Amino acid sequence: MTTAGNVIKCKAVVAWEPQQPVVIEEIEVAPPQANEVRIKIVSTALCHSDLYCLLKVVEKEFFPVVLGHEAAGIVESVGPGVTEFQPGDKVIPLYLPQCGECRFCKSPKTNQCDVIWTRMGSKEMALEKSRLTCNGQKLRQFMGISTFSEYTVAHQMAVAKIDPDAPLDKVCLLGCGVCTGYGAAVNTAKVEPGSTCAVFGLGAVGLAAVMGCEAAGAKRIIVVDINPDKFEKAREFGATDFVNPKDHNKPISQVLMEMTGGGVDYSLECVGDVECMRSALESCVKGWGVSVIVGLTDMQDVTTRPLQLTSGRTWTGCLFGGFKSKDAVPKMVKDYLEKKLKLDEFISHTMTMDEINDAIDLMKQGKCIRTVMSVCPE
Amino acid sequence: MTTAGNVIKCKAVVAWEPQQPVVIEEIEVAPPQANEVRIKIVSTALCHSDLYCLLKVVEKEFFPVVLGHEAAGIVESVGPGVTEFQPGDKVIPLYLPQCGECRFCKSPKTNQCDVIWTRMGSKEMALEKSRLTCNGQKLRQFMGISTFSEYTVAHQMAVAKIDPDAPLDKVCLLGCGVCTGYGAAVNTAKVEPGSTCAVFGLGAVGLAAVMGCEAAGAKRIIVVDINPDKFEKAREFGATDFVNPKDHNKPISQVLMEMTGGGVDYSLECVGDVECMRSALESCVKGWGVSVIVGLTDMQDVTTRPLQLTSGRTWTGCLFGGFKSKDAVPKMVKDYLEKKLKLDEFISHTMTMDEINDAIDLMKQGKCIRTVMSVCPE
Repeated sequence: MTTAGNVIKCKAVVAWEPQQPVVIEEIEVAPPQANEVRIKIVSTALCHSDLYCLLKVVEKEFFPVVLGHEAAGIVESVGPGVTEFQPGDKVIPLYLPQCGECRFCKSPKTNQCDVIWTRMGSKEMALEKSRLTCNGQKLRQFMGISTFSEYTVAHQMAVAKIDPDAPLDKVCLLGCGVCTGYGAAVNTAKVEPGSTCAVFGLGAVGLAAVMGCEAAGAKRIIVVDINPDKFEKAREFGATDFVNPKDHNKPISQVLMEMTGGGVDYSLECVGDVECMRSALESCVKGWGVSVIVGLTDMQDVTTRPLQLTSGRTWTGCLFGGFKSKDAVPKMVKDYLEKKLKLDEFISHTMTMDEINDAIDLMKQGKCIRTVMSVCPE
Repeated sequence: MTTAGNVIKCKAVVAWEPQQPVVIEEIEVAPPQANEVRIKIVSTALCHSDLYCLLKVVEKEFFPVVLGHEAAGIVESVGPGVTEFQPGDKVIPLYLPQCGECRFCKSPKTNQCDVIWTRMGSKEMALEKSRLTCNGQKLRQFMGISTFSEYTVAHQMAVAKIDPDAPLDKVCLLGCGVCTGYGAAVNTAKVEPGSTCAVFGLGAVGLAAVMGCEAAGAKRIIVVDINPDKFEKAREFGATDFVNPKDHNKPISQVLMEMTGGGVDYSLECVGDVECMRSALESCVKGWGVSVIVGLTDMQDVTTRPLQLTSGRTWTGCLFGGFKSKDAVPKMVKDYLEKKLKLDEFISHTMTMDEINDAIDLMKQGKCIRTVMSVCPE
């Protein structure tokens, strides 16, 4: 391995400032330090959260940044103290780490490792820990990983080793979207057999939520989207009923209440819109309805009437589908290899990383489910 | 029994219109019809919900009404088809009925019998089913019971038979406030041993929530109230820490976050104020914090940031503490008789029903916990 121990010069996608096209640049990737792993990214997908950060985050100090957090690759080299990984291992970087030591990792109740919050809370630390530079300027590593790069470095607590047979251009989707939606149904909502579910939003996360509801045994899965083109795909994943809010002149919660004789048992909001979040909650049956916020937004307050909750509904949310990332991702890969989980069906487009601005445009227009970009050859 | 089968003329408290003093009137109580029970009320307490309806409900058609829903009494007579009760039985009327037949009653997940919603949803039906009249004018029966009356009539699904040894001037509190707060902690929040809890608001419901947290084994119970006079009483019920928002110039959620190193495991909002509801949620620890809305209000929206939920908090609420009323109330009476449950400590004032406007004034001024009014002698 001639690269090990040396700085690697390679291509990466740099977002220099908010709301601007991203730029392919030559960057330098430092060798991994203690407990770190340097990864050659083979495939990365574009996720709405990347777009959200590019378009909605206006804080100047967030930039320049290398986005990307849904990927798969191969270990190039490891830093001191790393015994779990070796060069050649197939891996998926984890934007939600699992340190295994904090009180959150030690609790069976959550997957939200404290490291993610410390990292998000301290912009200085995040910059200091970045191993990426461009012409001597430090680039922020998005969510501690940054996968829109031929090479990146991550802490070993943020890397999952996966089956060597795994096709990286497919399992990269397990780095975010598919786990996020599937787990929200299975782990967070805890959908029960025979139940009625509603999924708001039919992007990759929403489709994965539909798949999760079906895997959990839901007997009726109502999907809600303003783009009816997505309904056929949803049917492949298990959806049974289709509601386009544009076809109705009353609140969608009322439509669902009437369709189900009082509301759904579980609803999953996979849009990231505060009005949808409210609708999703208010579509649930009183007494025991559970609504899970899966979509990402934090610009506005979400609202409801108190009686929606005192009448017995539960409102919650999750990140990464409630999966303890390092434990779960290898199992999800295995489930895919054993054909228990769909992944190929999410991939609407394939490109190279050079074409990322095209991928961004497709997503802005709602014309893709997932675009997988090839980065380096295996 | 000379009264059985006849109309009873007796005293009752009539609220003729919104925001006006209530009036003691002579009313007529019809005999119980099929599946109904006529009850001689021995003791009734004043609850904030009575006051809320008197002061906040402005719909004219809600009036005239006989309020009161936290009481205990003795069966005077029963209508056709009633086999479970006989004259002389000690009973507690239930504002939240348990029909035992609806899908909500049949589910172990909720106590919210469908009848309560049907009843609240249909003002015509509620009036038609009232057995109370005053000078020939029908009086609305509040929550299907109306306990501010020497006699009232309730459906048998809304009556719990209790131990004949129960002192009615104490166990009347189990008709609402004490079950509401205690159950919110035990049934809805499902407080775990060793956990940290916060209770917002130290009225009777809040104090009962404190008692519930203690019974469930909480190791730390932080109480929040702007009236420090209530802290000593809270200590009797198990509170360990006291926070007066007036002593702090930052959001109370931040104060609690700092006190607990990241937030409480459970919070219970027992005020009925949308800002308190938000604070209570945002005082919870990420990952697994559960916030239960117990206080009653539905005039304004309750709000938070979506990230408060996606970071793993759960927001829910309950009525009557999640207790299936008819099953639970007799057991709660038994727990009191076996000294497992405090009730006497909630009673700050005793009066007669004639003094109800004094009781209302005391509550408006926040000077009482519970005022128990004697109605008829046993």
